[in-house]
Amino acid sequence: MPEHNIVSRLQLSGLCFFLQILTIILFAAFVRYSPESSSSLCSQQLNCSWRNQGSDLQHPRFRDVHLQALLGFGLLMAFLSRYGLGSVTISILIVAFAIQWAVLIQGFLYSFLNGKIYVGAQSMVSADFCTAAVLISTGAVLGRVNPVQMLLLTLLGVTLFTLNEYLLLSLMGVSDSGGSLTIHTFGAYFGLTVSRILHQLHVDKRKKQQDTGHQPDFFSVVGTIYLWIFWPSFTSDTTVSGNTKPWALLNTYFSLAASTLATFVLLPVLHEENTVKMVHIQDATLANAAMMGMAGEMLVTPFGALIVGFLAGLIPPLAFRFLTPTLSSRLKTQDTCGVHNVHGLPGILGSLLGTLLTALATADTYGGRLELVFPLVTQGSRTASDQAFYQLCALPITLLLATLGGCLTGAVLKVKGLRSPLDTRHLENTVLQEGPFLPFSVSLCWHRRLRKDVTAG
Amino acid sequence: MPEHNIVSRLQLSGLCFFLQILTIILFAAFVRYSPESSSSLCSQQLNCSWRNQGSDLQHPRFRDVHLQALLGFGLLMAFLSRYGLGSVTISILIVAFAIQWAVLIQGFLYSFLNGKIYVGAQSMVSADFCTAAVLISTGAVLGRVNPVQMLLLTLLGVTLFTLNEYLLLSLMGVSDSGGSLTIHTFGAYFGLTVSRILHQLHVDKRKKQQDTGHQPDFFSVVGTIYLWIFWPSFTSDTTVSGNTKPWALLNTYFSLAASTLATFVLLPVLHEENTVKMVHIQDATLANAAMMGMAGEMLVTPFGALIVGFLAGLIPPLAFRFLTPTLSSRLKTQDTCGVHNVHGLPGILGSLLGTLLTALATADTYGGRLELVFPLVTQGSRTASDQAFYQLCALPITLLLATLGGCLTGAVLKVKGLRSPLDTRHLENTVLQEGPFLPFSVSLCWHRRLRKDVTAG
Amino acid sequence: MPEHNIVSRLQLSGLCFFLQILTIILFAAFVRYSPESSSSLCSQQLNCSWRNQGSDLQHPRFRDVHLQALLGFGLLMAFLSRYGLGSVTISILIVAFAIQWAVLIQGFLYSFLNGKIYVGAQSMVSADFCTAAVLISTGAVLGRVNPVQMLLLTLLGVTLFTLNEYLLLSLMGVSDSGGSLTIHTFGAYFGLTVSRILHQLHVDKRKKQQDTGHQPDFFSVVGTIYLWIFWPSFTSDTTVSGNTKPWALLNTYFSLAASTLATFVLLPVLHEENTVKMVHIQDATLANAAMMGMAGEMLVTPFGALIVGFLAGLIPPLAFRFLTPTLSSRLKTQDTCGVHNVHGLPGILGSLLGTLLTALATADTYGGRLELVFPLVTQGSRTASDQAFYQLCALPITLLLATLGGCLTGAVLKVKGLRSPLDTRHLENTVLQEGPFLPFSVSLCWHRRLRKDVTAG
Repeated sequence: MPEHNIVSRLQLSGLCFFLQILTIILFAAFVRYSPESSSSLCSQQLNCSWRNQGSDLQHPRFRDVHLQALLGFGLLMAFLSRYGLGSVTISILIVAFAIQWAVLIQGFLYSFLNGKIYVGAQSMVSADFCTAAVLISTGAVLGRVNPVQMLLLTLLGVTLFTLNEYLLLSLMGVSDSGGSLTIHTFGAYFGLTVSRILHQLHVDKRKKQQDTGHQPDFFSVVGTIYLWIFWPSFTSDTTVSGNTKPWALLNTYFSLAASTLATFVLLPVLHEENTVKMVHIQDATLANAAMMGMAGEMLVTPFGALIVGFLAGLIPPLAFRFLTPTLSSRLKTQDTCGVHNVHGLPGILGSLLGTLLTALATADTYGGRLELVFPLVTQGSRTASDQAFYQLCALPITLLLATLGGCLTGAVLKVKGLRSPLDTRHLENTVLQEGPFLPFSVSLCWHRRLRKDVTAG
Repeated sequence: MPEHNIVSRLQLSGLCFFLQILTIILFAAFVRYSPESSSSLCSQQLNCSWRNQGSDLQHPRFRDVHLQALLGFGLLMAFLSRYGLGSVTISILIVAFAIQWAVLIQGFLYSFLNGKIYVGAQSMVSADFCTAAVLISTGAVLGRVNPVQMLLLTLLGVTLFTLNEYLLLSLMGVSDSGGSLTIHTFGAYFGLTVSRILHQLHVDKRKKQQDTGHQPDFFSVVGTIYLWIFWPSFTSDTTVSGNTKPWALLNTYFSLAASTLATFVLLPVLHEENTVKMVHIQDATLANAAMMGMAGEMLVTPFGALIVGFLAGLIPPLAFRFLTPTLSSRLKTQDTCGVHNVHGLPGILGSLLGTLLTALATADTYGGRLELVFPLVTQGSRTASDQAFYQLCALPITLLLATLGGCLTGAVLKVKGLRSPLDTRHLENTVLQEGPFLPFSVSLCWHRRLRKDVTAG
Repeated sequence: MPEHNIVSRLQLSGLCFFLQILTIILFAAFVRYSPESSSSLCSQQLNCSWRNQGSDLQHPRFRDVHLQALLGFGLLMAFLSRYGLGSVTISILIVAFAIQWAVLIQGFLYSFLNGKIYVGAQSMVSADFCTAAVLISTGAVLGRVNPVQMLLLTLLGVTLFTLNEYLLLSLMGVSDSGGSLTIHTFGAYFGLTVSRILHQLHVDKRKKQQDTGHQPDFFSVVGTIYLWIFWPSFTSDTTVSGNTKPWALLNTYFSLAASTLATFVLLPVLHEENTVKMVHIQDATLANAAMMGMAGEMLVTPFGALIVGFLAGLIPPLAFRFLTPTLSSRLKTQDTCGVHNVHGLPGILGSLLGTLLTALATADTYGGRLELVFPLVTQGSRTASDQAFYQLCALPITLLLATLGGCLTGAVLKVKGLRSPLDTRHLENTVLQEGPFLPFSVSLCWHRRLRKDVTAG
């Protein structure tokens, strides 16, 4: 066993070293700082995403960029509530590699000019977006893959995410500022497919390891408060321009409140012995974020935001109760952190909602904002229903790419050398017990002891 | 007992559902997004609070709005230090409902035009303010009311807070940008009156349950750091204009430092076996915030801020030592989180200080700022002593409204159907053990075991 | 023993009172609010640091100021991961006094005009910087001095830091916007010298108390995420102008990612049973911040940032493994929080890197930024190699001042009356057990029990 451990440790060390050197070489060959702000260069000469257009990175926007970096950590926090401290070590490794790789891949697609990639503050925002999607994906397989497999999943996930985003935003002109499709739907179904492909590898009895969400810990408190505080700001930062900000801001703000109340409405009805826990409120908050991603800047009435938020808050409890058992037994899909219920399903519904709102968009209700939300409609090259058709088509394309990409990635992760034999003795207790990751077992043991003491006392 | 539990659970679920549907209907009927930024509309056509005037919500201000949302959570954090994870679930429910209700009530008073309420980013700020006051109120009754009663307290508290704020800021032209009176004093005395009215309901032996503040937990660390970081920013955001910002900012910054030192001066003298804990520093920080609320933009010298901060830091230790026992035995007022010492008393002293500084205000010392802090004085419709008289009158009015409102609310909460029988066995251990709230007992047990081990070891 | 406790308690209380009254009197005599923004006054009439020039404190910059305040707390967090909740109480006392004292000392040097110090938002930023350096110093002696000694260390540390900063930035015109030299190098070597002087006081067997970094706690998680989120923002705020921001921002962002990967490369190779913990990632993050302090705004290529970050990430593991044992046995230097490996050594390397980059600076690669980063070079009063020579000279000057100042401070702290006899029974368990500080023992005991349980279970 110790021999295996050494191999596993050096495998991770070697892969990290190789990837870092590779990134440095590619950066040295291609990446340069944009002489001016990247987006102004971008909008004039390059094949940019629509998101960039019209959003000059003025001075105050640079500040926003940093908060974007929180997104990834918001998600980190979200998983923390279920997988404790051990999962952060691996998550931060994923973040560290994903942002470097995303800058490269996105640079080649969006800002490649005269053989060089010109990066600016906008590159950080895009890289953070991409990292968020990959973190969602890892939520589906957390605890069942080792760190080396995680890094490969990141490598492929970033590449596929960027392809999908480029296809949707730049080629099809889809409006998806909050990432209902590009981040939440793609991330969830990519991760779930990988999880499905890896399923045969393991014994089935570990179903219990799936999220139970009954740890009375403080991470879900911190995570939820965090989301409440920064999500409105985040959503409003990614919309096309400062002028549409108040809408996206207020829509997110109102829908957050409604989704929280929805949790308190539904949970006591669904579960007999139930207590509303912060982890449930956090699920509602995340589902709401996924659902409002596309529609956030399109909803033109405050009560619409309340209704959408209320419905979003109903999804995770219902899905965890009725959908997860079916998926788990019929489709043999394991979903460690419940990303299907919290990101995937709300993301799909959010894109359908966005399609509906696009079809209903008129210059009367939007005013000057129409140009910013749907530039192609205002330019006359598309009607609102054309745009709605494109928005609708984006959904099956995203699902297809996520599924195919997931199959490919799963196949790569199944390659013999990567599968380190699992130490079955600790399997029940630990999520990241493999290779060099131990600390989680500690925190879980602690929780377990706590609960026992409390029950006994 | 299980039957009671089911009733209690469904009661909460039903009330949440009813309130959410009610809010959606009222939003659908009345609330619309302001076509332009809300405040510019407001200052031209509507009966707005003075706070809004002169504060155009320019682009960078939108960012500030999000940080405002932190206030509520700052307070959440403050209570966390004493009531652990269990109190957050209920607090976030209160926040979720209070902001929706506050948008409605404040909309009717401040921005009702042609039968519609026009909301903008400023509405979020006002709603967050209001939520903060209600959270302070709940601090007085935490652990002695069930969630259904909490929601009704929120409903009435938000309404009364808005009435008081409208009376003070809009009708009387009082300057209270940091909410010494409107938030801290009103919130504390409203909650304390409700607590007094509910007193007869329970047995007296539970006095020990009152705040002891001896849990060596990390929430007070997080809460204090949080307040240190965001309070200066918060105070400066609520002042009338960017031009007075540095003063409010620096005043808060300096007084925070002085109030912390005051804790270290007084506590070792007052208590024999005492150790200065983070919870004490947090009390000093909050008391300082309450005291600087009105005076923050009026203090014209840095050493004034140091003196006020130093005095503010002395209030909570002295009040917890000498005042609380008297209040508790004579007036039979229970005060779970010590809101009287941390918010009520410093708020009153802060409003007296603000009155004094108003009387002393001259155009010489204030320069161009006088117009922003006291617009009515600059316009010539009032002298500085007139303004000081109005500021002084605002104190008894606030106290009267808080007390009368508290009596009314207490009477409503005493209605038979709302009082769920208390499970006396767990009473000593838990704060929110009623109905569907269990997790706190866990964390408290843990603390208890910890302390025992330490004492024994 | 109880008698000693009373003396020790009253000593701290009295010193806090004296220092606060002293500060209030000095503030009353000298400190006034700047009528305009402080920096515009500063750049016209006063002997300001180069850092201030060209950085008008426009409206959005006020917001940045608050985030600066985070730096101190970022460091607080950093020590939390090793010294638990007990260390925060004392750290916040240090912060509270240091910012008041720093405003005075820096005011006398930088903005003293007609017998008055004019303070503005910039004063807060400078005071926060200074506080950060002092917090680094305390990291070296944490657990071996009592609170009274800590306050005296702060008093002298702030004064010496400001002298060194004034010498470097204002008199020599050195460019060190992120504080590689002024904050990290000075802070670390000042603290280490004090630690060396105090060494004879204690028995040697307490070497084990030195950082082991094996506590599976959550503070390192919070601290690392915190640094990841706010460090890029912090670095970019301190650079000379908004125009150079994207560079410093992106450099910090890229190097953070690379330093994290470096930890994963090196640790599994160095330690057999090793598990990568958050505390290791946090070390890499801090070392990276120290190393990029001076070079952050000078690196002109993204791959340079990746390489520097990667190397910075390698320093702490190597230094903890090979350098610390030597330092500890040969030089008898105790270093409670490992500030030499995390701040001192990376700071020195960062200043050498900055010197190299200064020598290589040309108008071609920098464009309009050259004027902002090296104003004296653009004005023609220096060549790039002259500037590099000054940058290089700043290193020995800083080391000399830190060492001499540390000797002086250590001598003061050794004065008889300040040394309270140590309670040797608790010595192994507690860091701040002296005088009125107990809580840490609690959290440490808890960790110990945890570990035992885990090992046994």
